Amino acid sequence: MQLNKVYKLVQQDLLKVEEQFQTLVKSQQGVFPELHSMLDQILVGGKVIRPTLTLLAGKFYRYDLKSLLPMATASELLHIATLVHDDAVDKASIRRGRQTINNIWGSERAIILGDYLFAKAGEFAADTNNLRVVRLFAQTLGTISRAELRQGFSSFNLEQTYDDYIERIAGKTAALFAMATESGAVLSHAPEKVIEALKEFGYNLGIAFQIVDDILDFVSTQAEMGKPVGSDLIQGTITLPSLLLLKRHPVRNPVKRIFNHEGNKQQNVKQAIEMICNSDIIDECYRVAAAYYTKSCDNLNLLPDSSSRKALLALADYVVQRRK
Amino acid sequence: MQLNKVYKLVQQDLLKVEEQFQTLVKSQQGVFPELHSMLDQILVGGKVIRPTLTLLAGKFYRYDLKSLLPMATASELLHIATLVHDDAVDKASIRRGRQTINNIWGSERAIILGDYLFAKAGEFAADTNNLRVVRLFAQTLGTISRAELRQGFSSFNLEQTYDDYIERIAGKTAALFAMATESGAVLSHAPEKVIEALKEFGYNLGIAFQIVDDILDFVSTQAEMGKPVGSDLIQGTITLPSLLLLKRHPVRNPVKRIFNHEGNKQQNVKQAIEMICNSDIIDECYRVAAAYYTKSCDNLNLLPDSSSRKALLALADYVVQRRK
Repeated sequence: MQLNKVYKLVQQDLLKVEEQFQTLVKSQQGVFPELHSMLDQILVGGKVIRPTLTLLAGKFYRYDLKSLLPMATASELLHIATLVHDDAVDKASIRRGRQTINNIWGSERAIILGDYLFAKAGEFAADTNNLRVVRLFAQTLGTISRAELRQGFSSFNLEQTYDDYIERIAGKTAALFAMATESGAVLSHAPEKVIEALKEFGYNLGIAFQIVDDILDFVSTQAEMGKPVGSDLIQGTITLPSLLLLKRHPVRNPVKRIFNHEGNKQQNVKQAIEMICNSDIIDECYRVAAAYYTKSCDNLNLLPDSSSRKALLALADYVVQRRK
Repeated sequence: MQLNKVYKLVQQDLLKVEEQFQTLVKSQQGVFPELHSMLDQILVGGKVIRPTLTLLAGKFYRYDLKSLLPMATASELLHIATLVHDDAVDKASIRRGRQTINNIWGSERAIILGDYLFAKAGEFAADTNNLRVVRLFAQTLGTISRAELRQGFSSFNLEQTYDDYIERIAGKTAALFAMATESGAVLSHAPEKVIEALKEFGYNLGIAFQIVDDILDFVSTQAEMGKPVGSDLIQGTITLPSLLLLKRHPVRNPVKRIFNHEGNKQQNVKQAIEMICNSDIIDECYRVAAAYYTKSCDNLNLLPDSSSRKALLALADYVVQRRK
């Protein structure tokens, strides 16, 4: 199954998510022009993987669009809100090929816009009229921000292990993937065993997704990624490729020089990227991602072989095969 | 009735709010030391007016501590989260007589800590098991951040009216006061008429509170306020005293010079404070605050003359009479 077939299953309803976004943008038109411009800048594009997960996970029992639609919207809005704050924290200037909010309006406005988006996401979550899902939403924001704090406090710190890395990406990425699928399952009144399976699917897929994201930060191009390559190293964030490079070259390592603020940063980043790309490190990273991908597929074993299950599996394929 | 008698009525339960905070702080001890330190720095002190409002508003019908306690905690946590972000936006160094989070850990960490606190506040709101209150919580965060954005976009802008000012403080302060009282009423299963009255009480009291806050920014001292005086003018924020000064002295006005970035900022701020304090502007501001105070008292007319009603009235007295 191709990715376009994944989306086809929920395409109509993804358009409705898009409509919710457009309604939010338009609500500020002529009322608060600056907020309108900010929303217009940020509520576009994106791979809409999270709302797709929510909608597909809701397909196995009672597909209740009245609650699934607001939750799918909440999943994507929560993601976007965290991106706005991440970019403000990282002083990033480009995201999804567009200028970031902080780059256009400054990080002060980006902070408050992010808060506004969290609030709107929370309102959509509340529109599900399901307290379990609302609680999950709040817990997920807590997990994400705690992991982001961890990342911030461990930046430029070389004393990090593989387990630290997995824990960090579990918090900052997999938690939201897991929320997306778990909430879809809960809102469709799936039995607990199925809810748990879909949640685990989301979690493992989220880990695989982030590992691939971290690989692409080394092997992709700015044009493909919509943001600069090597940005993790520039921010002082250790990811799987640099972790493996440190392990293989304990001395005279460009990552060490970057983290110890020695020499020319740009050159060190360039050298680290080259060393990683000219080794089998990327292959090894893909193997780790593939192991989580396999786990995620296994999580779906107890589900019937429906078009929705096929779509989730195809989405998993995409996640590990994507080039941007 | 004295203020200590206000607190006496709910003192036991305010201590439980404090315990919830301490549990949150301790949960990170030894687990995530930096987060533990940040929480320990921020989850102390404060006038706890918002949880007091929630608890007192819950006293007129079924006082259900099981839901009122998490909501009172959520009210204060939401307030603290917004302060953390406000201070990051304003680059403020002192709050409540203590160093701000951004001053100790930098604004990047402050952004993410604020998000973490929003999440925890949201979890407490969800612990009420009341969807109406959860929705109100999310809406209030939306209202506050929208008003903060307005304030940001209108900073150093002289074209602001009295109505703009009231709208802004309604959003950034009164909305949270109104949420505090409304949620208390909802959770105690009060009839709609009473819910509406207590919500309006909170709203009008919130406006009065913020006007007094804005007065104190001119007439108080740093020692009393726990933050620098004149900070609104330094940030380019027009409040009621400077609005009245602009009206009375349309030309050769130090506020205009500050906003047009002319001359020495410190001297202009000093002169503006002196001009305001040596006029009847402060009296006029207090009259405006008193009008909202009176409205808030009137909102309680339909309630029985109980100790809880007396306590709310005494709290209103305190709000307009306080010196810090």
